[in-house]
Amino acid sequence: MPESRPRLTPAIADVRRTVRECLEQAGIQADDLVLVACSGGADSLALAAAAAFEGPRFSGRAGESNGVRVGAVVIDHGMQPGSAEIAAETAHKLSVLGLYPVEIRTVTVGTDGGPEAAARTARYAAIDKVAEETGANAVLLGHTLNDQAETVLLGLARGSGGRSLNGMAAVSGNYLRPLLGITRQTTEAFCTDSGLEPWHDPMNKDQAYTRVRVRENLMPALEAELGPGIAEALARTAETLREDEEVLAELALDAYKRVAQERATRIDIGVAEFRALPLAIRHRVIALAALVLQAPMLARVHILAVDALVDDWHGQKPLTLPGIRVERTGETIALHTTKTLKTGAC
Amino acid sequence: MPESRPRLTPAIADVRRTVRECLEQAGIQADDLVLVACSGGADSLALAAAAAFEGPRFSGRAGESNGVRVGAVVIDHGMQPGSAEIAAETAHKLSVLGLYPVEIRTVTVGTDGGPEAAARTARYAAIDKVAEETGANAVLLGHTLNDQAETVLLGLARGSGGRSLNGMAAVSGNYLRPLLGITRQTTEAFCTDSGLEPWHDPMNKDQAYTRVRVRENLMPALEAELGPGIAEALARTAETLREDEEVLAELALDAYKRVAQERATRIDIGVAEFRALPLAIRHRVIALAALVLQAPMLARVHILAVDALVDDWHGQKPLTLPGIRVERTGETIALHTTKTLKTGAC
Repeated sequence: MPESRPRLTPAIADVRRTVRECLEQAGIQADDLVLVACSGGADSLALAAAAAFEGPRFSGRAGESNGVRVGAVVIDHGMQPGSAEIAAETAHKLSVLGLYPVEIRTVTVGTDGGPEAAARTARYAAIDKVAEETGANAVLLGHTLNDQAETVLLGLARGSGGRSLNGMAAVSGNYLRPLLGITRQTTEAFCTDSGLEPWHDPMNKDQAYTRVRVRENLMPALEAELGPGIAEALARTAETLREDEEVLAELALDAYKRVAQERATRIDIGVAEFRALPLAIRHRVIALAALVLQAPMLARVHILAVDALVDDWHGQKPLTLPGIRVERTGETIALHTTKTLKTGAC
Repeated sequence: MPESRPRLTPAIADVRRTVRECLEQAGIQADDLVLVACSGGADSLALAAAAAFEGPRFSGRAGESNGVRVGAVVIDHGMQPGSAEIAAETAHKLSVLGLYPVEIRTVTVGTDGGPEAAARTARYAAIDKVAEETGANAVLLGHTLNDQAETVLLGLARGSGGRSLNGMAAVSGNYLRPLLGITRQTTEAFCTDSGLEPWHDPMNKDQAYTRVRVRENLMPALEAELGPGIAEALARTAETLREDEEVLAELALDAYKRVAQERATRIDIGVAEFRALPLAIRHRVIALAALVLQAPMLARVHILAVDALVDDWHGQKPLTLPGIRVERTGETIALHTTKTLKTGAC
């Protein structure tokens, strides 16, 4: 089958360039296999098409010219009638585009954390398995600038600061997100310009989902009241907060190693050393200790309650928080786990 | 005139407590004078009433019992018909509440930066002047949790990361904001419970102002789509980002002192040392250098362009940015001012 050669429009050029740069920056090598996780929607279909184009033309850092192999994985969540047919059609389109291998996986979606979270858990587990089976070096995900902006807005509702606002990472382990700087408008234009028919998932319009309401109701409201460019501003915010968090997380880990003593079922923190730390680092040290004790992520109000054992000590009773009990005795604050730890913790 | 003794409702107790704690934490001493900046609206009227109650009962850190003196300043912006009468009525209410002195100042609002910014500039200049004339030790401002949340949302539109999202400081020089943890609903309840008639500024309903649209349109939309507690979540976000920024700003200043050489009309940055810094610090060092050169605040896109002279150096031409020209020569990046510097810079 001859390679289709669509006219090089701005949308096609933008998506291809960003995919190429992402592969370069991720250190993908000649002959590597990358998998595109594709739902058949405009974002991941454009990503797959661009990757299929760039793959054979890609020369890694050493200038090798063999190109990289580009395959795909299509997940059938089995959550809608006809989902198997849609997955098969998508897989067919991907094969026509030249991707190989193209794997379809049917998953069973549980209920933990609601339907969106359960679908995500099942999807990523299946993607990881295919990546392992095929020996893929990276998985490309089709999240766009608009997805990033929506993620930031969803994080606002949690109000746990930078960590809930810094969105999705461009590189996270095996996962690469080349399209975080590309708008949904551009991926749609890519498909139109390429003569590709993306699948329009009816769940993307279902107002039962918070993310759909953010996309369909909140983003337009923000644009209307604050002016255009909100999605871009939110995405920029995610990027800068992610850079900030990198620095702060490292400082916090260093501080944790200095001030925290890991015991069998508890962590001791020396008050004097702890007090000398800036608040941003103190709060992260407390969060880290809870994490090591396998407690659920602490809310800010809980972190502040632990901090008050230092700054506002007046003989408080032990604090009972989710998964931990925290107690000050003399110049030590002890965080005790309230559950049986899995091996290796502490 | 006998002191009015309203029933101690939860709203009254909350506002009074937060005012008392703020005065304590700010290190206000017996016999100090604090001024409340009061528009006559529910927020600052509740603040004034609570401060008038707490003032005489306040004992500073040393346990002195003389109390603090509580005065007020009322600004007449002259932007609406009848503004002089409204200022006079507010001043009268404040005197009845026992505040002394109560100063009215009429200001001339310019046009720089739009009507909201111009009014703010004129207002703070007049407040500062009254604080100086009366020898006030602090000025209390009536910004509430809702104002803080609105400020965070307005910052989102700028998209310059943590610095545009961290809202207003509880303590900023002479200014104290005791009500940042108190909702507008509570200040309104305070007024109702106290039999106080706040002034309802029609400008607070004028949809020509972005802040009004944020308050009236966006906040309810966010609550509707993301669930209740959004204002609280935004205020928490501001608080944590402010803590983060304290740490990052200090690291950036240290790094700036190490890597930047201030010359007559330029700042030189050594590429090797600069490259070793994390991105979050690099970007702040660039912003700091621009600030020292009295350039306008750089947008992220400009900061990234300067950063590319390090990470993506391919002989770029000098960059012309607002207020500065940036050029790499060998292993040095030079930021040149493009305007005549005020004395003391560099």
